[in-house]
Amino acid sequence: MSTARNPPLRHGFRPQTEVPGDIGDSMISLISRLYPMNRSITGDGVRETLRTLTNYIDLRIHEVASGTKVFDWEIPREWNIRGAYIEDSHGNRVVDFDDHNLHVVGYSTPVNQTMSLEELRPRLHSLADKPDWIPYRTSYYNDDWGFCLAHKTLSAMDDGQYKVVIDSTLTDGSLTYGDLLLPGAITDEVIIFAHTCHPSLCNDNLSGISLAVHLAAELAKHKTHYSYRFIFAPATIGSITWLAQNEDNLKRITGGLVLSVIGDDGPLVYKQSRRSDSEMDKAAEYVLNTHFPDSRIEPFSPWGYDERQFCSPGINLPVGRLTRTPHGEYPQYHTSADDLSIINAKSLGNSLLAVWQILGLIENNLSYINTQPFGEPQLGRRGLYRKLGGYQDVADRQLAMLWILNQSDGTNSILEIAKKADMPFDLIRSVADDLVGAALLRPADTLIDKSENDQSGGERQ
Amino acid sequence: MSTARNPPLRHGFRPQTEVPGDIGDSMISLISRLYPMNRSITGDGVRETLRTLTNYIDLRIHEVASGTKVFDWEIPREWNIRGAYIEDSHGNRVVDFDDHNLHVVGYSTPVNQTMSLEELRPRLHSLADKPDWIPYRTSYYNDDWGFCLAHKTLSAMDDGQYKVVIDSTLTDGSLTYGDLLLPGAITDEVIIFAHTCHPSLCNDNLSGISLAVHLAAELAKHKTHYSYRFIFAPATIGSITWLAQNEDNLKRITGGLVLSVIGDDGPLVYKQSRRSDSEMDKAAEYVLNTHFPDSRIEPFSPWGYDERQFCSPGINLPVGRLTRTPHGEYPQYHTSADDLSIINAKSLGNSLLAVWQILGLIENNLSYINTQPFGEPQLGRRGLYRKLGGYQDVADRQLAMLWILNQSDGTNSILEIAKKADMPFDLIRSVADDLVGAALLRPADTLIDKSENDQSGGERQ
Amino acid sequence: MSTARNPPLRHGFRPQTEVPGDIGDSMISLISRLYPMNRSITGDGVRETLRTLTNYIDLRIHEVASGTKVFDWEIPREWNIRGAYIEDSHGNRVVDFDDHNLHVVGYSTPVNQTMSLEELRPRLHSLADKPDWIPYRTSYYNDDWGFCLAHKTLSAMDDGQYKVVIDSTLTDGSLTYGDLLLPGAITDEVIIFAHTCHPSLCNDNLSGISLAVHLAAELAKHKTHYSYRFIFAPATIGSITWLAQNEDNLKRITGGLVLSVIGDDGPLVYKQSRRSDSEMDKAAEYVLNTHFPDSRIEPFSPWGYDERQFCSPGINLPVGRLTRTPHGEYPQYHTSADDLSIINAKSLGNSLLAVWQILGLIENNLSYINTQPFGEPQLGRRGLYRKLGGYQDVADRQLAMLWILNQSDGTNSILEIAKKADMPFDLIRSVADDLVGAALLRPADTLIDKSENDQSGGERQ
Repeated sequence: MSTARNPPLRHGFRPQTEVPGDIGDSMISLISRLYPMNRSITGDGVRETLRTLTNYIDLRIHEVASGTKVFDWEIPREWNIRGAYIEDSHGNRVVDFDDHNLHVVGYSTPVNQTMSLEELRPRLHSLADKPDWIPYRTSYYNDDWGFCLAHKTLSAMDDGQYKVVIDSTLTDGSLTYGDLLLPGAITDEVIIFAHTCHPSLCNDNLSGISLAVHLAAELAKHKTHYSYRFIFAPATIGSITWLAQNEDNLKRITGGLVLSVIGDDGPLVYKQSRRSDSEMDKAAEYVLNTHFPDSRIEPFSPWGYDERQFCSPGINLPVGRLTRTPHGEYPQYHTSADDLSIINAKSLGNSLLAVWQILGLIENNLSYINTQPFGEPQLGRRGLYRKLGGYQDVADRQLAMLWILNQSDGTNSILEIAKKADMPFDLIRSVADDLVGAALLRPADTLIDKSENDQSGGERQ
Repeated sequence: MSTARNPPLRHGFRPQTEVPGDIGDSMISLISRLYPMNRSITGDGVRETLRTLTNYIDLRIHEVASGTKVFDWEIPREWNIRGAYIEDSHGNRVVDFDDHNLHVVGYSTPVNQTMSLEELRPRLHSLADKPDWIPYRTSYYNDDWGFCLAHKTLSAMDDGQYKVVIDSTLTDGSLTYGDLLLPGAITDEVIIFAHTCHPSLCNDNLSGISLAVHLAAELAKHKTHYSYRFIFAPATIGSITWLAQNEDNLKRITGGLVLSVIGDDGPLVYKQSRRSDSEMDKAAEYVLNTHFPDSRIEPFSPWGYDERQFCSPGINLPVGRLTRTPHGEYPQYHTSADDLSIINAKSLGNSLLAVWQILGLIENNLSYINTQPFGEPQLGRRGLYRKLGGYQDVADRQLAMLWILNQSDGTNSILEIAKKADMPFDLIRSVADDLVGAALLRPADTLIDKSENDQSGGERQ
Repeated sequence: MSTARNPPLRHGFRPQTEVPGDIGDSMISLISRLYPMNRSITGDGVRETLRTLTNYIDLRIHEVASGTKVFDWEIPREWNIRGAYIEDSHGNRVVDFDDHNLHVVGYSTPVNQTMSLEELRPRLHSLADKPDWIPYRTSYYNDDWGFCLAHKTLSAMDDGQYKVVIDSTLTDGSLTYGDLLLPGAITDEVIIFAHTCHPSLCNDNLSGISLAVHLAAELAKHKTHYSYRFIFAPATIGSITWLAQNEDNLKRITGGLVLSVIGDDGPLVYKQSRRSDSEMDKAAEYVLNTHFPDSRIEPFSPWGYDERQFCSPGINLPVGRLTRTPHGEYPQYHTSADDLSIINAKSLGNSLLAVWQILGLIENNLSYINTQPFGEPQLGRRGLYRKLGGYQDVADRQLAMLWILNQSDGTNSILEIAKKADMPFDLIRSVADDLVGAALLRPADTLIDKSENDQSGGERQ
């Protein structure tokens, strides 16, 4: 279906309208498996997480040594923890890391001492208005330690002495991330990013990890036009590390999505890239506006997840973000209540469908050149037009044909024509295939794709 | 009034606000005369039509031989018809071409045979919901034949045998079209197109033909800045033929109008050219919005009349379309009910007035250079300003003067200044004349006109 | 705080939010002192006015000789007047210039004759609908004479003979204007213009003169980035004269304001410059929209005060106009009722505050370059970020920091970032200082300023 000069027709990647019924369940199953692991920006919990993903996809795992410079940052020491507790004077463990990964402030330095509640209190984090929930806190770049606990637990602690133990290590080691390249017909890449640094929290971001894994597994079965790169890395330092290590190849990235908090009941929210009008932005907006009625589009802002790094001014990639209820807008965010109860298989399945449709649109959004641009071509002679003239009505398909022929001067994509004609993208795309078959259209972006990829051809052969 | 370097002032083409009372009647009279002739995309009916027009204007008639290649098309064989009928077994002519030109499907191949109603029925076209009306059907590029008849006639036909005769010829001949050039001060052309291929149908498009003829006759009495070219040709194949035969000179076309279905009671509708913001588009929008309150502007679409060809991507001329109720939006469209009863002299007269005003605006829409652009020029010294200062009010004319002087840096046309100042175009235009007279303005587009016409100077001398 | 290469930080010119309580009173006091002087476009009244201003600011006074060519104009003869009256046959002075400067049409030629009321009447100007008010009339460029008087006075005059005396002179002399340059760190100038030609009228334009004088006195106490030039000159011929005499240096003008009718109770009105989107326009719009709720923005039009000259097409400077109730929109405009009773200290003080804030915004509206644009810089390491991660809220100041870093690619000014982030200008500006201090930002316009000023460096040394 593909030739040396023309990009292949992308029949393999037609947008689907339904998601397989069991894929949401499979996503939940992976999330359940990953939930107990203690992730952070480094450490064995991340390694175990990525190793688990290799059961689904052919992930390549990278280790970047502590002390490595990545842009303005430096890979920190690796943190691991074996246990931690607060024991009261009666030998009762009031707080125990074995009960919940969130009990210890991430990156806590080792501790083993006895102290009064008064001394200890500044190290204890709880939520007065949510007395049952354990908050999530970290202290990555500042040597510190602390515990997080339910406020009702804190309230019940008396003024005595407490034995405080954190059996952690902060040592030269490495930061671990995984990636996967699914080569397409061209080396231009679409990237999918999910952060891997959050411990036992489900929506943020086991939902994003699980969606990305299932998407990659599904995409691997198809021939695609673009290449797809999946990145599983810790937030901030992980995306910065990946960007720094792939700086020379960033120019091949034509779009991307950061996936997070995407398993709850809320409607889908697409946050625009810093560029705001890239093809990724237009595709996501079209799909959400057309097929997901309660969804909404948010302008770019420099607060959020790893889109902040992909959209930093020196990088400025067309990478948007797809979530359901954004971080900070649901009460369970960054607490122990972000557990399996707030996500569900149906939401996850529909989120995957939305991503699939967005990518499908990008795959299929060619621009064409009308090969007979002087007047209308004679469609009847080619069997493309009704034979008996004079009827009062025009079939949609024939009107779509006229729209494509009229607009195909190389400057208008299928998506732009669909919007102008107020006709469905898939109809315009399908009619364009007929016209290519009749040699009345040829793809306009062949040479553009080629030239854009000249510098980046090394990696793919 | 004109000099070698400057375009002439266009006093000869002031927009009128009233149309002569009898011009609408004259348009009806021409339509009545043309109505009985059997037009198609070729044939003697077209020749007779164009010959009739030469009584009004100095039309040049062109014949293009069958088989001539025109872009993606080829001039078809010429079709002529002497008679046609369906005769029942009792010798009654149930359908007779002599009664109405629409009775035969256009371009029907010759037939002479006897057949049952059952065999005949697929060849019979009627409108079940309009039992008295004969539909209009053609089969130009596919050898076929058929009859069109009132549904009540069809319903009355019994199951017997019918003698079916179409005495037509399809032979190598030619396609006939007419054109007329009214030279102006410059060779840049405005084109007016009306299609000539419809048989006994009044609004579509004897109204357009008659309006164009009367406009040409009136314009011929005036000196104009632009040259005007009127084209009377069959739809689609006719405009494509004209474009193919004039390909080298298309660059001189600065605007145009396709005129059709313009004699009914409906409000005026201007359909934008593919460019949508050309001077023709702006002029038509301004005139309709300002002077024709119920009129409306429609965006370009690739469905309609010959604007489809002028606005094909390889041609892309700023040619819009002026109609009243557009094709397909009135029930009589493409039926025998599109007769003299649905058009009237007043609508035709007002349509002509609208075109006249649009052309008048384009003729007068110069851009100027303020010759004293540093501060305001001293208007009082030139007798252009009230002598006693300090009044609280400013006369419209003086305010218009300030607007023109301020905006005339060569980038703003009279129309743009009129919009910005929210003052009538004619006032701004008239005040500009005063300022040119006082040497405070000079036309900005002199050299632009010249350079645009360098390649096209051959035709006019 | 400043270096050789970088523009200084502008702490000296922080926008104020309150105006000193007595500055409005001081403005009224100056207006009261200037009110009795008989100003015109030339003459001793103007000289006395400017001399008075030198008590407040270090004004440089210029005399331009009659007959000097200034663009399309010529400096007129100088007009002075010692007295004028109309005396009835009983020796009663019905109208006496000693009673009110407005009684004589400006630039009246000398007269000394006796005439009937009938002969005199065409020379008498009054307002029938405002019988107590004396209108203001001039006849600068047309030798003429006349009197202005209350309509009730006119009505009481009987038909007898009147002795009419105007003891004026029209002789070769000069036009007088004043200007003041307050040098800043760079030679780019912001100009402030107030017209000086109106005799005993308070709002138009002693209010503008007094505001400009007090602004200059206050500005002189501060170090500024831009240089500020104050111009006090007659309307029209004065601004034209100044432009003609400073033609070579106009390129250094980056913005300006014409100040007039700015002391009444009406809300502030900013009229855009002809460019409409200059930095001056954006600054004025932001300040008025943000801090002056009833204010409004008007588009440019070529009718008004001296912005007409600064915005003529050959000059086209980004000079807007700040007024309260614009000329012609209050009934007392250009009559004797435009006296001290329609202005007040509070309005004047707030007008000064608005100008101060607009200039403060321009002074502080730098664009920056993020020096660590690849990913976010590590703020924590620099003490710019909270140390303990994971909180649900983000402090405004930290969010502002992310906005500035993200947008600072040199194309976005503080004002643009403030609008995009929907955060206060002053917050963004202040946080930018912190980031400059941390070497994460550097000003983007250093070299731009330098190159723009290459030709204009002579004046300042």
